[in-house]
Amino acid sequence: MQKYGGSSVADAEGVKRVAQRIVDAKRAGHDVVVVVSAMGDTTDELIDLAQQVSPMPPPRELDMLLTAGERISMALLAMAVGNLGHEARSFTGSQAGVITDSSHGKAKIIDVTPGRIQKALGEGAIAIVAGFQGVSQDTKDITTLGRGGSDTTAVALAAALRADCCEIYTDVDGVFTADPRIVPSAQRREHVSYEEMLEMAACGAKILHLRCVEYARRYDIPIHVRSSFSKLTGTWISNTPPTAPAAPTGESSTMEQAIIAGVAHDRSEAKITVVGVPDKIGEAARIFEALAGAGINLDMIVQNISAAATNLTDISFSLPRADGGTAMTALDRIKEEVGFASLLYDDQIGKVSLIGAGMRSHPGVTAKFFSALAAAGVNIQMISTSEIRISVVVDELQVDDAVRAAHAAFDLDSDQVEAVVYGGTGR
Amino acid sequence: MQKYGGSSVADAEGVKRVAQRIVDAKRAGHDVVVVVSAMGDTTDELIDLAQQVSPMPPPRELDMLLTAGERISMALLAMAVGNLGHEARSFTGSQAGVITDSSHGKAKIIDVTPGRIQKALGEGAIAIVAGFQGVSQDTKDITTLGRGGSDTTAVALAAALRADCCEIYTDVDGVFTADPRIVPSAQRREHVSYEEMLEMAACGAKILHLRCVEYARRYDIPIHVRSSFSKLTGTWISNTPPTAPAAPTGESSTMEQAIIAGVAHDRSEAKITVVGVPDKIGEAARIFEALAGAGINLDMIVQNISAAATNLTDISFSLPRADGGTAMTALDRIKEEVGFASLLYDDQIGKVSLIGAGMRSHPGVTAKFFSALAAAGVNIQMISTSEIRISVVVDELQVDDAVRAAHAAFDLDSDQVEAVVYGGTGR
Repeated sequence: MQKYGGSSVADAEGVKRVAQRIVDAKRAGHDVVVVVSAMGDTTDELIDLAQQVSPMPPPRELDMLLTAGERISMALLAMAVGNLGHEARSFTGSQAGVITDSSHGKAKIIDVTPGRIQKALGEGAIAIVAGFQGVSQDTKDITTLGRGGSDTTAVALAAALRADCCEIYTDVDGVFTADPRIVPSAQRREHVSYEEMLEMAACGAKILHLRCVEYARRYDIPIHVRSSFSKLTGTWISNTPPTAPAAPTGESSTMEQAIIAGVAHDRSEAKITVVGVPDKIGEAARIFEALAGAGINLDMIVQNISAAATNLTDISFSLPRADGGTAMTALDRIKEEVGFASLLYDDQIGKVSLIGAGMRSHPGVTAKFFSALAAAGVNIQMISTSEIRISVVVDELQVDDAVRAAHAAFDLDSDQVEAVVYGGTGR
Repeated sequence: MQKYGGSSVADAEGVKRVAQRIVDAKRAGHDVVVVVSAMGDTTDELIDLAQQVSPMPPPRELDMLLTAGERISMALLAMAVGNLGHEARSFTGSQAGVITDSSHGKAKIIDVTPGRIQKALGEGAIAIVAGFQGVSQDTKDITTLGRGGSDTTAVALAAALRADCCEIYTDVDGVFTADPRIVPSAQRREHVSYEEMLEMAACGAKILHLRCVEYARRYDIPIHVRSSFSKLTGTWISNTPPTAPAAPTGESSTMEQAIIAGVAHDRSEAKITVVGVPDKIGEAARIFEALAGAGINLDMIVQNISAAATNLTDISFSLPRADGGTAMTALDRIKEEVGFASLLYDDQIGKVSLIGAGMRSHPGVTAKFFSALAAAGVNIQMISTSEIRISVVVDELQVDDAVRAAHAAFDLDSDQVEAVVYGGTGR
């Protein structure tokens, strides 16, 4: 199972390069199933056309429109493979048996019935499947899976076909200990656990989407994230660290689990502070009900104890910047009812996260992280932790400093590196 | 039932204009089903992309690629209709129940099961259907119907849905007595019979494809050919001349059937003459078997009686220019075997045809036609006739003169006009 993103098939040359890679895998004796995204900017161009004819295109029709993108790339890829002397057959999501619910634009996969793919493989052909799309179980309408949909298609098909592994080709060499554009000494990880990768994805690592990693963990499908522009080994994401299952001759590693897998960062969020909330039971609930009602997913939530003198408290939370306006409107509507004093909105923030399964058994990680940030002059605005992660919200302008300071403090520049993150596409 | 060609939906403005027309029909109280082609140059652009990755793209994949074109136009059209306040649902050929054989690139419709279209109509929605495409009954693969495919889709759906009529929107105002670019006084026909339209299509009239008219005749679906750029009535094609079935308030015409429906011309053919064929039983058959084996469709075939002295004859035929090279090669290969003297190839020819059901009962049409050509100084190279048609092959440079002479000789400039032809797209 291989998956190629839109940047890998941006033009005819890209399609031919990917075709060569597919044929190489076939010649190495594998049954090959390929999931492909739409070419380069196709999706943006189609969305632009839609907006020219309708300011609010109906979701069903938008899905019908956007799925034309993968139809084009997969057919071209099948042709290019054919031109190299191997039979390839392209399949839409519907033909590949990707069954979803009816939520147009963000459908969830509820079943995969890849009978036609298996038949093609049985006949010696290479199967090329459209990523990002499926067919609704109830209405039989064409659906799209939303962000991360193509990666998720690949993992879901890999699970249904009991594939050895799922190779996700992208425009980076794998998962790094930090974004190399910020930390030039960042190192590629050989292996990351599903758990760590999930935290990374949640913390702004765009290399793999959360739902794709969740799917892979649930069905235990090893993912190999690698570059479509080089032959280098990338990063394996699986449960079993030393030797990846689909790399049977791989170098077994006996080194101790490092404390920190890597440093992730995210500049896509904003922070809202509800000032002067009466510290009574149920007030916070009303605030979050209003936000949920507006369809907003919150990230970090912080509430300090109330100042004894006033019996008032402040509640802060972070959320996607794109939802900022909607959230402020929803909160303003309940201002009288809840009786809070005011709202503060700040979209000049960034989130920096330290991730590593090793921190479970190593006390003092938090102290070391915060000392490093202090030494670098970075002020911490919010803090949130999980068992294997510490995240802080800082001024957007200090994100790079914070990432570098954390990376250095935990010796990630050395050989004992583990993971993280950057780049990638949303589809 | 309405059908819009690629030129009608060439850009966002075109899509919006067509959407308005569809909504007008809906508001007039009709159930509306629309068949749409790919936008403007989309198909050519996709073919260009295919050729960049493969010189000989596999037909299955080429169909998968090209059908993306209608997917885009139909989804945009559904959005634009939705934006005008009416629900529209788009359907691929497969979803609309267009079942075909497995001949990729030139599939034939073998059944139409429009259950989803009927359901959409029953729920008050407008159905937008992708033209030119279907799904193979045997392999379940996506197919395209080849030339004239979108018009044929519209007529086939109209038949399956028992529609009152099929409106075919194009970039001309209807069927004219001759190409108005050659004969400025050419007049629009109000009505043409299926039989006449079939002859016209076969004689170079590009306004409707032969297979579409054949389908309409078989199921008796009245076709209304009209312009998508104006509100004018176009030309009705049906069995019942005076009042078209779907124009119940139409002006009843009691005038006699005119002798000539119109003058058609065709500049897409070439002529091959096989010189000095031994006049023995079976020689001609061997020549035409060789051409059939090469997959070439011949049009006119002429054989003169042999010169008594030599016992040799010449056989001439016309064929599509695009097949000229293939035909010459196939014939050259049997030269020794058949024992003919030489081959002459001429692609500087044009065909001019006089069509009209009225000529059945009017002797002297041929004489009048040939006299008019002679008076205009046009030399006739080949002649072929059917019950309701006379065609001549002339020098390509004399086609315009021949059309004008015939048009004038049969008083087609007057009020007694009947039909023909020009323009249009192949898809």
